[in-house]
Amino acid sequence: MMKSYKEVEGRFKRLTDLNGALAVLHWDSAAMMPAGGATARADQITALSMVCHEMMVDPSLAELMSEAEAEADKSPDDFDNWRLANLTEMRRTWRHANAVPSDLVEALSQATSACEMVWRDARPDNDFARLQPLLSDLVSLVQEVAAAKSDALGVAPYDALLDEFDPGTRSADIDPLFDDLDIFLPEFLQKVTDVQANGQQPEAFAGSFAIADQRALAERLMHQLGFDFDFGRLDISHHPFTGGVPDDVRITTRYYEDDFTQSLMGVLHETGHALYERGLPAQWRHQPVGLARGMTMHESQSLIIEMLACRSEEFVRYLTPLVRETFSGSGPAWETENLVRLYRRVTPGLIRVDADEVTYPAHVILRYRLEKNLISGNLAVADLPGAWNEAMQKSLGLTPPDDRDGVLQDIHWPSGAFGYFPTYTLGAIAAAQLFDAAQSDNDAVLTGLEQGDFEPLLSWLRAHVHGQGSLMSTQDLMIQATKQPLDIDIYKAHLTRRYLGHQD
Amino acid sequence: MMKSYKEVEGRFKRLTDLNGALAVLHWDSAAMMPAGGATARADQITALSMVCHEMMVDPSLAELMSEAEAEADKSPDDFDNWRLANLTEMRRTWRHANAVPSDLVEALSQATSACEMVWRDARPDNDFARLQPLLSDLVSLVQEVAAAKSDALGVAPYDALLDEFDPGTRSADIDPLFDDLDIFLPEFLQKVTDVQANGQQPEAFAGSFAIADQRALAERLMHQLGFDFDFGRLDISHHPFTGGVPDDVRITTRYYEDDFTQSLMGVLHETGHALYERGLPAQWRHQPVGLARGMTMHESQSLIIEMLACRSEEFVRYLTPLVRETFSGSGPAWETENLVRLYRRVTPGLIRVDADEVTYPAHVILRYRLEKNLISGNLAVADLPGAWNEAMQKSLGLTPPDDRDGVLQDIHWPSGAFGYFPTYTLGAIAAAQLFDAAQSDNDAVLTGLEQGDFEPLLSWLRAHVHGQGSLMSTQDLMIQATKQPLDIDIYKAHLTRRYLGHQD
Repeated sequence: MMKSYKEVEGRFKRLTDLNGALAVLHWDSAAMMPAGGATARADQITALSMVCHEMMVDPSLAELMSEAEAEADKSPDDFDNWRLANLTEMRRTWRHANAVPSDLVEALSQATSACEMVWRDARPDNDFARLQPLLSDLVSLVQEVAAAKSDALGVAPYDALLDEFDPGTRSADIDPLFDDLDIFLPEFLQKVTDVQANGQQPEAFAGSFAIADQRALAERLMHQLGFDFDFGRLDISHHPFTGGVPDDVRITTRYYEDDFTQSLMGVLHETGHALYERGLPAQWRHQPVGLARGMTMHESQSLIIEMLACRSEEFVRYLTPLVRETFSGSGPAWETENLVRLYRRVTPGLIRVDADEVTYPAHVILRYRLEKNLISGNLAVADLPGAWNEAMQKSLGLTPPDDRDGVLQDIHWPSGAFGYFPTYTLGAIAAAQLFDAAQSDNDAVLTGLEQGDFEPLLSWLRAHVHGQGSLMSTQDLMIQATKQPLDIDIYKAHLTRRYLGHQD
Repeated sequence: MMKSYKEVEGRFKRLTDLNGALAVLHWDSAAMMPAGGATARADQITALSMVCHEMMVDPSLAELMSEAEAEADKSPDDFDNWRLANLTEMRRTWRHANAVPSDLVEALSQATSACEMVWRDARPDNDFARLQPLLSDLVSLVQEVAAAKSDALGVAPYDALLDEFDPGTRSADIDPLFDDLDIFLPEFLQKVTDVQANGQQPEAFAGSFAIADQRALAERLMHQLGFDFDFGRLDISHHPFTGGVPDDVRITTRYYEDDFTQSLMGVLHETGHALYERGLPAQWRHQPVGLARGMTMHESQSLIIEMLACRSEEFVRYLTPLVRETFSGSGPAWETENLVRLYRRVTPGLIRVDADEVTYPAHVILRYRLEKNLISGNLAVADLPGAWNEAMQKSLGLTPPDDRDGVLQDIHWPSGAFGYFPTYTLGAIAAAQLFDAAQSDNDAVLTGLEQGDFEPLLSWLRAHVHGQGSLMSTQDLMIQATKQPLDIDIYKAHLTRRYLGHQD
C-alpha cells in the first residue's frame, strides 16, 4: 500500500522535470542567450521558480507526504532503502521550502537580483561603498531566512544555510577540519615555496594556441574520460560551469589564445562534475533521492578528476605528447617534467579562482569564517573589507590593493549564497580520500592514467559515489566508499607527497 | 476599477513567460540538444505544458475573467482598445483550453507522440501501412477535439481547429479564394512553363561553398534586413524554423555545401518571421494581445521578405555582387539575370517544401481539402494515399511513385496539426497585398531594395502589422493596412507580373 507515496512521487517527478527545464534555461543564459534577452529570461526563470515554489508549499502536498510517511511506518516491506531515503529527501527539501514565508521568499529574490546587478558594476569599478547598502539589506534577509530555517530544521542558523548546499553537514563538522588546516597550511606553504624557489623553474608556453585546436584536444580528453557526447555538450561561457540534466549534461569553458593550460584543466574539472551527474542512478532520475548528494560531493568529483587524476605525473606523462602534437610544440617547455611543474606551481595570490591546490583552502577558510560572522551578526557588512584584508594578510601574507581583488571578487554573497564556500575545501578533502580508497581497491586506477585509461577510476566512482545518488548523507557516503569518515590526514598526506615528495 | 482585470493580466503574464520558457526548450531540442537528451526533454516539456494547461482550466481563472469582463462593461473608460482586445484574446485562448476535457487532452498528447514517432521511421521506409492505425486513432481524437471546440466556439468543427492557427478565419473565407486559385493556376502554370521553356535557361552554380562563407553572408543580410543580433541568434537545425521570444528570436537554417541558394533564401524567409516577432508591441510583451496575430500573418511576413522583397529584380541586382564576392564567383552564372532566373524557376514537383512560388498553392489546396474531409469523416485514413495521388495528378499532373514522396512527406498530420496548411497560401495572398500597399504608400519600399535598404519596408510593416500584435482579426488587420480585405486579385496580378512580365 503506497498510494500516497506514489502520488508524492508524481509531484516530485514534475518538480524534477521543471527543475530540469530551469537548468536548460540557466545554461542557455550563460552559453547562448544574446544580451537583449536577459529581461525576458529573468521573467521566464521567475515564473518557473514560482511555480515550483507554489507546488512545494501547496497544503495538499504536506498532507500527502504525512500519509506517505505513515505508509512507510505501517508497511515497512514496501519501502526499501531507496524509497525511505527518497522520503527523507522529500521531507528535507519540503522543510527548506516551507520554512520561509512567501513574502520573505519574494523579498529575498528581489534583494538578490538587485544586489547581484549592482555587484556586476561595483566590482570593476572597485566601489564597495555602492554595494554596501544592498549587501546589508541582503544579509539581513538571509539572517531572517537562516532563523526561520533554523527553527524548522532544528539546527543553528548558519548550519541551516549550509544544509541547502551540503545536506547534513554542520559547522561542528567543519570547524575542526578547517582549524587543523589553518595550522598546517602556513608552515607547509612555506616549505613548498622554499622547495619550488630552489628547484627548477617552470617554463611557460609561448605562442598563440588556436581555439579550434584547444577545443579538439578538450573533446578528445573528455571522450577519454568517459564523457558521452550523445548525452552532453561542451560550449563556451564567461564563467565555466556544469549544467543541464543527467541525460544531457552541458559543460562550458573559456579559452585563452595565449594560454591553453587553463582551459585544458578547466574542462577536465567540469568533466568531473559532468561524470557525476551522468552517473546518478538512472532508475531514480526524477526523484530527490536520484540527485547528487550535495556540493561537497560534487566538488570532490571535479577535483578527483582534475587535481588527483589529471595533475598526477602518470597522466601528465600521457598528456604531454598529445599537447605537443596538438599545438606543434617543441623544445624543453613541452616535456612532461615542465608540464608537471607548471601544473603544480604554488604561488599565494589574491584571487580564489586563480589559486593553486595548496593556497586554495586559505581562500575558503577566510570566507567561511567571515560569512559565519556575518550571519551571526558578529560582523557588520560595513566592516567586511577591513576584516577581509586583515584575514588575507594573516593567512597568505597579502593585502589586497583594492576591494576589486579583495572582498568584491566573488559573486556568491551578492547572489545570496551563504554556506556554499566551505564545500570547495570539503570537496578537496573528500577527493583525496576517495582517490586514495580507489587506488587501494584497484592499482589500475593510477597506473591506467599513464595510458589515459580512466575506466578503472570511473567504474569505482560509478559504484561508490555516482550511483549512490542521495541514498545516504555525505558522511555515510564517505564511510561506505572509503571505510572511514572525512579524514583530513589523507588530504594532508596527499599534499605533502605531491608538493614535498614524501609522506610528512 | 480593474482589480480583477489586473489579476487576470498577472495570470496571463505568468502563462506567457512559461510559454517563453517552452519556446527556448523547443529551440534547444532542434538546435542544440544531443540525441540522448530527448526523453528528459520530452518530460520537461510535458511537465511545463501540463502546468500551463492547469492554469488555464483553474476554476478561479474562469471566475476572475468573468469579473474582468464585467469591469469592462461597467467602466468602459478604463478599457481602451488594447485592453478590450486583450480580454477578447484571453477569452479565446481560455475557450480553446477549456473546451477539451482533460482526459481527451492527455489521450491526444499520447496519440500525437506515438504517431509522430512512427512517422519518423515510416516515411523513410515508405510504409504507410505502419502509420495508418496510429493516424486513424489520432484523427478520431482530433475529430472529438474538433466537436468539443465546435460547441464551445460556436463554429464548424474544422473551423474550430483552424481557429487555433488563424483566429477568426473560417473555411467560408478560404473556400472562394482557393476555388478561384484552383481555376487560375493550371492555365497560368502552363503559360509560365511554356514561357520558361522557350526562354533562356538558368545556369546552376557549380562548386563547393564553405558553410562559414554562407553563414557570413546570411548574417550580413540579416543585419541589413534589420535583425538585431543583440536580440536574437542564427543557428543550424535539420528543419529551419523561427523560435524563441520577441526579445530573443532564434532562427535556424540548414546549409548545403554544393548549393548556397537554398539556405540564403531560407534565412531571409526566417528573418521575415523574426522581424515580426521582434516588432510586436513592446508594452504588451507578456499579454495575449501582444502576440503575433496568427499563422497567416506570420507566413505573410516571411513571404513578404523572401518572395516579394528578396526575389524582386531590384534586390537580386543588389545581391549579385555580394554573392559573387562571398564565393569568389565569376562567369555568366554570376550575373543578376541568371540569379533571377534561378530564383524564379517554376517546376511542378512532388514535395511541398521544395515547391516554387507558383506551384506551392497547389500543394496547400490539396492538403486543405483532404484534411477537411478527414475531419468531417468523408474520407477514411485508409483511403488517404489514393485520394492524395489522385489529387496530385489532377492539380500538378504528377503521380507520386511512392508514399514517401506523397502522403507521408509532411509531419503536420502525424503531429496532430489539422487546420495549419491553409495558412501558408493565405499568407502568400496577404504578403502580395501588403507589399502592394506598402509600395503605394512609399515608392522607396521597392527602390530602396536596389541599395539593400529595407528600412522603408520595415518601418511600414512595423507600423501596419508588427506593432498591431493581436489588436484585431486577420481580416481587420488587412483592411487597416491595405484598405481592403484579403484580395486574391492582387496576388494573381503579382504572379502574372513576375512570371509572365505583364498584368493579366
